[in-house]
Amino acid sequence: MPLPFTVSAVDPGSRARRATLTTAHGRIETPAFMAVGTRATVTGLTPVDLTAMGAQVVLGNTYHLMLRPGPELFRRVGGIHNFMGWSGPVLTDSGGYQIFSLPGDRTLTEEGARFRAYTDQRIHLLSPERSIAMQTAIGSDIMMVLDVCVDSRSDATTTRAAMERTHRWALRSLAARVTDQALFAIVQGGVIPELRRESAAWLTAHPFDGFALGGLAVGDARPEREDVTNLSAELLPADRPRYLMGVGTPPDLLHAILAGIDMFDCVLPTHLAWQGTAFTSTGRVRLTRGPNALSDERLDAACECPTCRTASRAYLHHLFKCSEPLGARLLSVHNLHHYHALMADARRAIEAGTYASFASATLEAIDRHEHSDRRLGQVAS
Amino acid sequence: MPLPFTVSAVDPGSRARRATLTTAHGRIETPAFMAVGTRATVTGLTPVDLTAMGAQVVLGNTYHLMLRPGPELFRRVGGIHNFMGWSGPVLTDSGGYQIFSLPGDRTLTEEGARFRAYTDQRIHLLSPERSIAMQTAIGSDIMMVLDVCVDSRSDATTTRAAMERTHRWALRSLAARVTDQALFAIVQGGVIPELRRESAAWLTAHPFDGFALGGLAVGDARPEREDVTNLSAELLPADRPRYLMGVGTPPDLLHAILAGIDMFDCVLPTHLAWQGTAFTSTGRVRLTRGPNALSDERLDAACECPTCRTASRAYLHHLFKCSEPLGARLLSVHNLHHYHALMADARRAIEAGTYASFASATLEAIDRHEHSDRRLGQVAS
Repeated sequence: MPLPFTVSAVDPGSRARRATLTTAHGRIETPAFMAVGTRATVTGLTPVDLTAMGAQVVLGNTYHLMLRPGPELFRRVGGIHNFMGWSGPVLTDSGGYQIFSLPGDRTLTEEGARFRAYTDQRIHLLSPERSIAMQTAIGSDIMMVLDVCVDSRSDATTTRAAMERTHRWALRSLAARVTDQALFAIVQGGVIPELRRESAAWLTAHPFDGFALGGLAVGDARPEREDVTNLSAELLPADRPRYLMGVGTPPDLLHAILAGIDMFDCVLPTHLAWQGTAFTSTGRVRLTRGPNALSDERLDAACECPTCRTASRAYLHHLFKCSEPLGARLLSVHNLHHYHALMADARRAIEAGTYASFASATLEAIDRHEHSDRRLGQVAS
Repeated sequence: MPLPFTVSAVDPGSRARRATLTTAHGRIETPAFMAVGTRATVTGLTPVDLTAMGAQVVLGNTYHLMLRPGPELFRRVGGIHNFMGWSGPVLTDSGGYQIFSLPGDRTLTEEGARFRAYTDQRIHLLSPERSIAMQTAIGSDIMMVLDVCVDSRSDATTTRAAMERTHRWALRSLAARVTDQALFAIVQGGVIPELRRESAAWLTAHPFDGFALGGLAVGDARPEREDVTNLSAELLPADRPRYLMGVGTPPDLLHAILAGIDMFDCVLPTHLAWQGTAFTSTGRVRLTRGPNALSDERLDAACECPTCRTASRAYLHHLFKCSEPLGARLLSVHNLHHYHALMADARRAIEAGTYASFASATLEAIDRHEHSDRRLGQVAS
């Protein structure tokens, strides 16, 4: 039974589309941004916070969750929804990206990745089958296949080998599925157009519930990434969701939606929040900077999030200066709200048939603020 | 205009009393526990959280707030209520305890304390007048006089000198007040009964809005502290609130209420929360301990706080093991709720005229759990 996915509108001026993905734990209205909750928690926030800020779906990570708390706990408590108290949809990444990105001992073979765990210092195997078994225990609504990432600057031989192994692993993942949890494949091929075409063609011949673009934002420049996204999105079936993994800034999202992408995840809004940087309607704001110390202005006058309704810039500045964790919590709420509100605006624009002009006006405004900030020396992140 | 304070019931079996203190920002039903928000934030929690857990009043600290964000900011934003978004009563400690307890350069003279600030490495003066000026800028509902603390094991000469200076500083504080913010004096005298009697007699001859017992929980043993509390509380006027500063555990609070104390503050519930320890109806629970890893039980089956309604012990254990800040946030909510619920139970028992038996039954239960925990080797904090 494929995951129900209904496209309700396509923008006349672009390939942007408005759709609904229906999971066992509720609907995801797309385009959608998924808050990253790597260890079964979006850092510092409760499920009540997530609902209040418009979050529809939370992303967990198989690599981290298999090490801690481990599959046995998930089997015991009946999955991640019970465990973290989140009743909405959950997508789990497979661990492929962590195998690629995390430091430390690791050996990659056709069987899978053997690595030394940071938790118990023991050697663990993460194979396509193990990843699916773990995601089955987690009980996510959408599972991802284990894929092989390479740096975008790798040569064609390396990139092809990773892509071909990703394909074989995708089939092993499909064969290992024993539940009706959805399963998405991941298109690889680096920034080499022929490989991306080959990967999309190969994978879409198999009955996956959706298709992701992986291996981007790993050393590639933004124009390259946009070219690959445009090219690949067009090759993916119109009746399945398209997920651009690990990307990115608000402009990245606006561009990718133009290309027909439906789903996103990125640590940027939460990571920058913990560093004291906010996304606002007038550009990025670094709360630790001096001029905020005496500002009784709201963080973002155009924002209706709980943080902007209650906290001044001076208070947020104070909290960061004192290393008080409430500062990062309040900025996380704001930044995620900012991303979710951007997606809600995009959905409305697609429904109204005005997405292309909405995107270009919004991109222009962001660009204007960033230029003006750079002139004032206000942005460094 | 003295702070309105109405005693509505006195327990027939003890000196416990039920009263209402009316401030410009609302009423405080006593006995009351005040959550400690040293730097204009109860670590990790929002005012919405505080209201939800039954907090009536928040305590800020003059020493920390004068260094950061400083008086100018409070004047600019119109006080701590606007600054932190808390509309209920605020009490500010004077900085006396910090002069005593914080490490670093400091010189104490009749004028005040000169110390090198941890924020800007410069020498600052904290005098009775400076403390009142800062508390005026903060705009707290209840200010405290700057006092001189000494270790409870100090000799009689040292303890007397500190007490006498505390008295002179109390009068300077009273003279420095320029608003209708309430001002409490602080009884000193270490653990020497004659000095405590002298201090209470001296201070209560002046028009303070309330009286605190200071200089306890600074090297004294629990029986000594209880003796001093019993002795001093009896010497304080019945028509003014009595505040036991910096104390303590739930048994400490239950004992002090028996002696006629109305108000408390202590960092214990929040500090222990950040270390992973919870107060529960069946004793202290250290969430990091192994047996919690697979426990799908609630933290405290008898508790109705947001944490106990949603999170299992296994989830809390997981969050602490991963150093995820949500763990400390959820435990802070629970521990403060536990303290506030204990005070609410005490208020109800006083109203029902059964406080003495309520206190003895509750103390016995806590004692039983602690003994049983010790036997099992479960408590180390």
